[in-house]
Amino acid sequence: MKFKHVVVALTAIALSSSTLAQVKPEQQIKWRQSVMQVQGWSMGRIKANVEGTYNKDQVIQAANVLQATANGGLGALFPAGTEKGTGWRESQLKPEYFTNGDKVREVAMAFNKEANELAKVAATGDAAAVKAQFGKLGQACKGCHDKFRVEEKK
Amino acid sequence: MKFKHVVVALTAIALSSSTLAQVKPEQQIKWRQSVMQVQGWSMGRIKANVEGTYNKDQVIQAANVLQATANGGLGALFPAGTEKGTGWRESQLKPEYFTNGDKVREVAMAFNKEANELAKVAATGDAAAVKAQFGKLGQACKGCHDKFRVEEKK
Repeated sequence: MKFKHVVVALTAIALSSSTLAQVKPEQQIKWRQSVMQVQGWSMGRIKANVEGTYNKDQVIQAANVLQATANGGLGALFPAGTEKGTGWRESQLKPEYFTNGDKVREVAMAFNKEANELAKVAATGDAAAVKAQFGKLGQACKGCHDKFRVEEKK
Repeated sequence: MKFKHVVVALTAIALSSSTLAQVKPEQQIKWRQSVMQVQGWSMGRIKANVEGTYNKDQVIQAANVLQATANGGLGALFPAGTEKGTGWRESQLKPEYFTNGDKVREVAMAFNKEANELAKVAATGDAAAVKAQFGKLGQACKGCHDKFRVEEKK
């Protein structure tokens, strides 16, 4: 099951934006920035739960959003050339994204793996296990951001 | 299972933003605008598939994102007073959202129901059934937008 998820994610990256090819780059940047925000929201919810009062249903909701978006074909929102361009705001994508496919696949697979695992752990309601897996997913997020995201301008 | 999803969604609405209470309204507006964009992206992908070449895996990905976000406790991102405020852009929420709880629950439940059903239908790979269910989900989106969303300023 986990393997299938990874395969689907990689296929999505390979497909690029075939079915939505008519969509403007600016809209694709806006969508991917939105996905990142939704993932940030979900991570924040889980953090609040593992550091405060634990609510199993809330953690499951957030983990399911992370899993679905991690496996959601996000790679299609990174067509060539979109290291420049403005969605909600200026793109923060480094040009290296388009020249280091091996590393992109590596960080994407790590993100998929940890998000799938978090959804599994969240379903058990084991707060300590969720906290540990949340840390691993955070590292996977950071692995991609460190490599491919330009620091946000404040 | 479907009933459980609806209960979870309604609980999330009732909870408001308890665990993320320290988050600024502007961030909450930005998050909910992001969720809407992600849902729009997913609807667009399914539309492209049912109107063009049908790719079962892509439709499943998009339907899973819709299901997870529909059941993701989105109601918590609509705290009192956020009919005004700016996230990515000015809030488009009508003040009626806060005075017509029965209607909010009605449209939220319809959205949940149709999104859950779409995920179920997508898994079968039956393109005609997906097209029909996609139409029903679109109506559920519209049901909320017509009632509670201010028309986008062009």
